[in-house]
Amino acid sequence: MPNAALLETFPTPTDTPFVIEHVADEFTSLCPKTGHPDFGTITVRFEPRGGRDGGVCVELKSLKLYFQSFRTEGIFYEAVTNRIRDDLAACMKPAWLVVKTDWKGRGGIRSVIRATSGSVPAAWLG
Amino acid sequence: MPNAALLETFPTPTDTPFVIEHVADEFTSLCPKTGHPDFGTITVRFEPRGGRDGGVCVELKSLKLYFQSFRTEGIFYEAVTNRIRDDLAACMKPAWLVVKTDWKGRGGIRSVIRATSGSVPAAWLG
Amino acid sequence: MPNAALLETFPTPTDTPFVIEHVADEFTSLCPKTGHPDFGTITVRFEPRGGRDGGVCVELKSLKLYFQSFRTEGIFYEAVTNRIRDDLAACMKPAWLVVKTDWKGRGGIRSVIRATSGSVPAAWLG
Amino acid sequence: MPNAALLETFPTPTDTPFVIEHVADEFTSLCPKTGHPDFGTITVRFEPRGGRDGGVCVELKSLKLYFQSFRTEGIFYEAVTNRIRDDLAACMKPAWLVVKTDWKGRGGIRSVIRATSGSVPAAWLG
Amino acid sequence: MPNAALLETFPTPTDTPFVIEHVADEFTSLCPKTGHPDFGTITVRFEPRGGRDGGVCVELKSLKLYFQSFRTEGIFYEAVTNRIRDDLAACMKPAWLVVKTDWKGRGGIRSVIRATSGSVPAAWLG
Amino acid sequence: MPNAALLETFPTPTDTPFVIEHVADEFTSLCPKTGHPDFGTITVRFEPRGGRDGGVCVELKSLKLYFQSFRTEGIFYEAVTNRIRDDLAACMKPAWLVVKTDWKGRGGIRSVIRATSGSVPAAWLG
Amino acid sequence: MPNAALLETFPTPTDTPFVIEHVADEFTSLCPKTGHPDFGTITVRFEPRGGRDGGVCVELKSLKLYFQSFRTEGIFYEAVTNRIRDDLAACMKPAWLVVKTDWKGRGGIRSVIRATSGSVPAAWLG
Amino acid sequence: MPNAALLETFPTPTDTPFVIEHVADEFTSLCPKTGHPDFGTITVRFEPRGGRDGGVCVELKSLKLYFQSFRTEGIFYEAVTNRIRDDLAACMKPAWLVVKTDWKGRGGIRSVIRATSGSVPAAWLG
Amino acid sequence: MPNAALLETFPTPTDTPFVIEHVADEFTSLCPKTGHPDFGTITVRFEPRGGRDGGVCVELKSLKLYFQSFRTEGIFYEAVTNRIRDDLAACMKPAWLVVKTDWKGRGGIRSVIRATSGSVPAAWLG
Amino acid sequence: MPNAALLETFPTPTDTPFVIEHVADEFTSLCPKTGHPDFGTITVRFEPRGGRDGGVCVELKSLKLYFQSFRTEGIFYEAVTNRIRDDLAACMKPAWLVVKTDWKGRGGIRSVIRATSGSVPAAWLG
Repeated sequence: MPNAALLETFPTPTDTPFVIEHVADEFTSLCPKTGHPDFGTITVRFEPRGGRDGGVCVELKSLKLYFQSFRTEGIFYEAVTNRIRDDLAACMKPAWLVVKTDWKGRGGIRSVIRATSGSVPAAWLG
Repeated sequence: MPNAALLETFPTPTDTPFVIEHVADEFTSLCPKTGHPDFGTITVRFEPRGGRDGGVCVELKSLKLYFQSFRTEGIFYEAVTNRIRDDLAACMKPAWLVVKTDWKGRGGIRSVIRATSGSVPAAWLG
Repeated sequence: MPNAALLETFPTPTDTPFVIEHVADEFTSLCPKTGHPDFGTITVRFEPRGGRDGGVCVELKSLKLYFQSFRTEGIFYEAVTNRIRDDLAACMKPAWLVVKTDWKGRGGIRSVIRATSGSVPAAWLG
Repeated sequence: MPNAALLETFPTPTDTPFVIEHVADEFTSLCPKTGHPDFGTITVRFEPRGGRDGGVCVELKSLKLYFQSFRTEGIFYEAVTNRIRDDLAACMKPAWLVVKTDWKGRGGIRSVIRATSGSVPAAWLG
Repeated sequence: MPNAALLETFPTPTDTPFVIEHVADEFTSLCPKTGHPDFGTITVRFEPRGGRDGGVCVELKSLKLYFQSFRTEGIFYEAVTNRIRDDLAACMKPAWLVVKTDWKGRGGIRSVIRATSGSVPAAWLG
Repeated sequence: MPNAALLETFPTPTDTPFVIEHVADEFTSLCPKTGHPDFGTITVRFEPRGGRDGGVCVELKSLKLYFQSFRTEGIFYEAVTNRIRDDLAACMKPAWLVVKTDWKGRGGIRSVIRATSGSVPAAWLG
Repeated sequence: MPNAALLETFPTPTDTPFVIEHVADEFTSLCPKTGHPDFGTITVRFEPRGGRDGGVCVELKSLKLYFQSFRTEGIFYEAVTNRIRDDLAACMKPAWLVVKTDWKGRGGIRSVIRATSGSVPAAWLG
Repeated sequence: MPNAALLETFPTPTDTPFVIEHVADEFTSLCPKTGHPDFGTITVRFEPRGGRDGGVCVELKSLKLYFQSFRTEGIFYEAVTNRIRDDLAACMKPAWLVVKTDWKGRGGIRSVIRATSGSVPAAWLG
Repeated sequence: MPNAALLETFPTPTDTPFVIEHVADEFTSLCPKTGHPDFGTITVRFEPRGGRDGGVCVELKSLKLYFQSFRTEGIFYEAVTNRIRDDLAACMKPAWLVVKTDWKGRGGIRSVIRATSGSVPAAWLG
Repeated sequence: MPNAALLETFPTPTDTPFVIEHVADEFTSLCPKTGHPDFGTITVRFEPRGGRDGGVCVELKSLKLYFQSFRTEGIFYEAVTNRIRDDLAACMKPAWLVVKTDWKGRGGIRSVIRATSGSVPAAWLG
């Protein structure tokens, strides 16, 4: 069962512009209709608030365990995406956050869902 | 025969920025001139209106059946693209919608057609 | 001999934003200096004016025959590109038009030429 | 041990717009938790200040030796990235600087970190 | 020895927006420190001034011979890039010019240098 | 309905070793269980008997029409493959024949089926 | 728990040479040491015995359900591979069988395991 | 009109094992049925007889002019392939010769034709 | 210092044909001449003796630690390859063993070294 | 001027099967007809005689300097290939040797030349 309590953070180490991207390509959950497994790649991009403002970053191993907690959950693509965005936004309160989920095809259709909060920072461009 | 009545929707699960892309690479219709089959990939991207505003998303299996309803239709590339855009815009009234059709070559020329409504949302960038 | 009279059009089927791209990778003309054949890929992108405004689209088979009419012509890369842009602009009067020609290398140098008219439409982005 | 004293510079040879990118794909440091090696690719992009303003560029071989000085250091991804950005900013005082570190996967998650200073210059676009 | 006198031009054939890109992937010069050969790819992009304004384009074969004149020259990456930009700017006085040099790796580091003059024209976008 | 009568042939133009491969990537039939369309790529490789021995080759356009005759047929992957092999073997009596069908995934599993007759000829190697 | 009873077969439809390959890239099991999920791609290739000899082929949907039965099993790479080979050999008694498992990396090492029975048939070559 | 008289040769420079491959990806001829142009890539591989035995190799520029002589010829794929094989075999009398023609698709079907003479030499392997 | 004592094994789980491949793309050692780091990818392929004959397989984590033991060693490419082959042959006494090392370029030359013992087993083919 | 005296060797470090491949993609010589530079990739593969038999391997840096000695030489593709094969065979007397030269296109034709001595060893396969 998706478990946001697994997420741990550490203080942002800088106040200058700084962006982090984690790509997990070993994500699996279950289709709530059919019970068959869904497989996808989860991309998380964020700009933490600066260290002076109490900004934090999600810890990598805790993120992996959090993703594993979806393994036995029956949950739609859209809900996975919004759930991860909401859980990460709640624990990091980042300046910018993007969660992109990229699903292997079902019935000849591949899907990509994006949920965001905040505006694309300059540090992401260039 | 293209049948928009096959399209089903479900309520948008969130009010925060959120974008969905579906890519169907098993689309086929017929050339209205020669009767020969055309093969293409259909990409649908949209930002639904927020849940509070009665926004809805197209259901994935219904989208597949809707695409299959073009299988015996004699219809030009441009008409396929505009038809799908219009049908999806009518049933979802989304904040943003792009329909892109990418056709295998005929006579040494490959074609890509794009029809849109609304403006590119910030959630698509970054 | 390049023959713009081969180009045929059909009325734009919509007034909403709409962009068409045709990619012909079987183009050949002759080098006017050496007489040796040149081989290239021609990309045409355009946004037709809306149907209400008498907008038209180039017909695909006529475009192919028009491209074939360069086969025995001695003509420079730059002239091919501007000629196609001018001929298509004349017959379609589109809101936007890009002609890009991408040439196989000569003497270890590959060349790409772009000629445009009008501004990139929003329907091309996203 | 990361050693910024290894970095050498030479005077910027021009005042007109000018951008340099170095990509080092043979970077390795140690995970401070487990002691296991981390492997990554480091990309450095910068626009030096103009020569009239005393601008300098980092010398390539000194950059390589500086990167090698991380080989026996236990240090987190985020710290590597910010450390290199800070060391290069200190020795070059460039108009623009991006440091991007792209790490091979751990536990099924790949990470990319970007730290920047200054704004993307026009010479980087186009 | 780099020889700008080898560069020849021809009059710009049009006044409408028009952009040319030449990519030479058979460039070699010598490292001024070690005498070992350097190998790179040179990309030249430019928008000539319009024909009415006396605009000219660099002739392709003369560009090739000009590039070959670096073969026995001991010269740094940065100097090659700025030299080509300056020589082409001098002979064409273009509205826009980008010279990008992309060098094979030395010591595990690949480098890309860009020098520009003028602003990115609309004809390059889209 | 698959219709072998559509297949036409022409006399083998030579007696020396000679191999032909046709790859059709726009094949579609129907799943006999669900009625949903299947999409695949059909590869046909053969060595005709020599012209002196009355050898024949399948004509390309007739092959395309024959493949189109599967469009409304409910038929399994294995049956498609064996049917095409048998129909082509019957009409050409070739020295060697391979039919390979490569199907887009269903339920996360992609399938490739091969049916052959005769031995791989030397002309296929090297 | 891996469940060979899920495997179903159907009679081989032909006696002529015939080879089938199924590639499942959505396989997951658990590491018996750490409990963390493993992700891999399973390839099954086989030549069934001929229909006259009572040969059978594994049914595609039953194969998918059989693969899903490893989802909660703690089992090593080598055991997964041999188990699938043994289960498929037992239910099909094929003339040739290859099971190849291709695992995403752990600790910077990717692994591929192959288990076979019988000899490569001529129908697999060419 | 295909003109074998354009082919020139030079004496084989060695008696030890030696294999040459030329790949021409700018070949065009005409379809004898429709008059539309065909585009293909021609690969020629051969082992010349040794120099002591009077062996010769085809000269590269003469090969290019020979290929250009097909530009205005209406000729089938199979005939192009056998014609080139026969012309090259006649002028070089090589120990081994392969002519492979790889044609861009027509009607959704791509074709590859191979004609050979002699046996694959050991120098081609490894 | 390369330490074969780090290698651990487990009993071969089967007597039927069985081949294992491990690919480690995070290997680094030092050049004994210059002291600069070398980076490579190590591929190990082997067929263990059957379980009845006391065959064993190398344990994956121990293999990773063994590879890490080269990190501070000054050692040539050829010596790395033969050393790993000899150490693995000594601890596993496998029926077949291949060690392939693929090194990033130095001075514009990339190198691949292969050392083997035993003959390629049938289970590796097909 | 090609200078075989630059080649240095070191004793083969083993008697067990062992194969070395060096790939140099920064090779340049001059066309003896036109004086224009030719660019190619040189691949050298060999199995040295065993150490007990006095076998030797070419030293990597000396190989690089040897390749650089062709930089100002007017020499045909075929002669480059046979020259390198003969020079390396003379200095190493290897059990097996392949020299493959892969040349960038001239006039739309790319060429690959292979010269060998000895037979492909088992250590190259698998």
